[in-house]
Amino acid sequence: DNKLKIFSLNSNPQLAEEIAQNVGIPLGKSSVTKFSDGEIQINIEESIRGCDVFIVQSTSEPVNENLMELLIMVDAVKRASARTVNVVIPYYGYARQDRKARSREPITAKLVANLLETAGVTRAIVLDLHAPQIQGFFDILIDHLLAVPLLSEYFINDSGIDLSNVIIVSPDHGGVTRARKMADRLKAPIAIIDKRRPRPNVSEVMNIIGNVDGKTAIIIDDIIDTAGTMSLAASALIESGAKEVYACCTHPVLSGPAVGRINDSVIKELVITNSIALPESKQSPKIKQLSVAKLLAETIVRVHEQKSVSTLFD
Amino acid sequence: DNKLKIFSLNSNPQLAEEIAQNVGIPLGKSSVTKFSDGEIQINIEESIRGCDVFIVQSTSEPVNENLMELLIMVDAVKRASARTVNVVIPYYGYARQDRKARSREPITAKLVANLLETAGVTRAIVLDLHAPQIQGFFDILIDHLLAVPLLSEYFINDSGIDLSNVIIVSPDHGGVTRARKMADRLKAPIAIIDKRRPRPNVSEVMNIIGNVDGKTAIIIDDIIDTAGTMSLAASALIESGAKEVYACCTHPVLSGPAVGRINDSVIKELVITNSIALPESKQSPKIKQLSVAKLLAETIVRVHEQKSVSTLFD
Ligand SMILES: Nc1ncnc2c1ncn2[C@@H]1O[C@H](COP(=O)(O)O)[C@@H](O)[C@H]1O
Ligand SMILES: Nc1ncnc2c1ncn2[C@@H]1O[C@H](COP(=O)(O)O)[C@@H](O)[C@H]1O
Repeated sequence: DNKLKIFSLNSNPQLAEEIAQNVGIPLGKSSVTKFSDGEIQINIEESIRGCDVFIVQSTSEPVNENLMELLIMVDAVKRASARTVNVVIPYYGYARQDRKARSREPITAKLVANLLETAGVTRAIVLDLHAPQIQGFFDILIDHLLAVPLLSEYFINDSGIDLSNVIIVSPDHGGVTRARKMADRLKAPIAIIDKRRPRPNVSEVMNIIGNVDGKTAIIIDDIIDTAGTMSLAASALIESGAKEVYACCTHPVLSGPAVGRINDSVIKELVITNSIALPESKQSPKIKQLSVAKLLAETIVRVHEQKSVSTLFD
Repeated sequence: DNKLKIFSLNSNPQLAEEIAQNVGIPLGKSSVTKFSDGEIQINIEESIRGCDVFIVQSTSEPVNENLMELLIMVDAVKRASARTVNVVIPYYGYARQDRKARSREPITAKLVANLLETAGVTRAIVLDLHAPQIQGFFDILIDHLLAVPLLSEYFINDSGIDLSNVIIVSPDHGGVTRARKMADRLKAPIAIIDKRRPRPNVSEVMNIIGNVDGKTAIIIDDIIDTAGTMSLAASALIESGAKEVYACCTHPVLSGPAVGRINDSVIKELVITNSIALPESKQSPKIKQLSVAKLLAETIVRVHEQKSVSTLFD
């Protein structure tokens, strides 16, 4: 019969474990190791014939290793006669390379979509794609979940901040829709940070559109990478009279100097999800991590039971 | 007009440079770097519109990084309106995963072929695939070159050994065809090492088929990885009366303990090609590296001029 099986790879085993617990089944048995020369060796250690298989893997750092692990696992699952090969990609790497910003650049986000399809993926579950247009890069079914409800719920129920005095801030023009969604949930106004370079080779000016005076500002973004923009934006908000600044994002890429910058910034608390695992070295008392396991588990079960998942999208 | 352009990636820039010199053109200008989070960033810095583009990259260690670099470069070249997108892959990684040795394993060598085609490769030039059947994994044109002529030429002209007393040795049954090709060129007999495990959990016995007594043995293989088999084979040959043992291979994977094992072994000299770059840390007075640049350059020119390359295959 058409059973549900969930497999973890190496990017985020703790999240995969939590997802399986929420679904109420053990993780599938497999071994994912390396040969002496660095080639990935995968073996699936239980029958999956006729099953709906879900493979949990974020293509976070080391992105190329994690992506190849995923592609090779998909190949193995397909060849083991699974009924469907579903990938759960909480963080979809290379998403910022989604267009030719200059001549003769690749469009790697599209390449990755094609590679996944070529390997044999039949459906993909993703969370907060950097650009929602990336859904259109796939010819297979794709479920695009959002973290705004989870992040909003935290600020409403668990943060202890005075909700009547909040303003939601988008750190750039691209993020206004996301900020609007969160503001609706918190019944708050929004502001936008309008970065402008007055002249070439002069550093950017952060202009704030909207009145943040005396407010608790919550900046929301999809990805925090080096945290340069985020910490400058927070300072600009304080300079414009904000009382305090919180920040949140779905994907804690946190590369290079990010955690140090967050710690040194005026940001009171940074709220993130576990779409990307946070190694010990990146943990900080300022950083609060929420789990997307329940959301992903519910999606997996609905997909397996062929029920609509669209109510989970907003 | 339909110009020839050669681009290097990061696996083997020295070989790419040598190939370009042999062709008589400079390498194409491109930048291949990484973003702060480890994502590969590629930009091609000259027009390639309408050109025959050749990208030189071995998928050697770090195999996943090198493969992703290649796929992303292919995407960029394709989108920059190249006329043809040719890849020169002197060492084709994952070639040993070319069949399901156990249930529920991937066939990664086939996956990689599909990924290359999906990215947009129109033709591939490869050298000594671990199994010649891998040619059939591709639906695009593939040119399969052999290193036997180059290795043989070295032993005939430059090694100083007495050719009348040589025997060519295949280290396993799979390599007999290759050993036979080399033996023809050296006008020498062949021997085969017949590994057998007498009972489960008992170590392998190396039986030699053929008379090596008093001979100069030359072992030939396609890949030397950890050099375990190679050094044991060399000892077995000496124990069976061989006067001295040389070894050669096309692809010096040389992972883990390999170089130490070669240095400690009875092997007098190991002759390899530069299909895989040899970092300083793996160099040794016992190891002699020959260049495949001329062979690859000639192939590139013939492909570009739409001439037959089949005379280069043997
Ligand atoms: N991994 C990365 N890290 C930093 N910047 C990137 C990365 N990938 C793409 N980009 C750049 O980010 C820009 C797109 O980001 P955005 O405007 O936020 O969509 C482009 O100019 C890309 O070159
Ligand atoms: N990178 C690798 N390093 C060592 N062994 C490998 C590697 N890739 C595949 N193999 C194994 O090598 C065997 C195939 O080698 P061969 O019999 O020489 O074709 C299979 O059992 C594979 O599991």
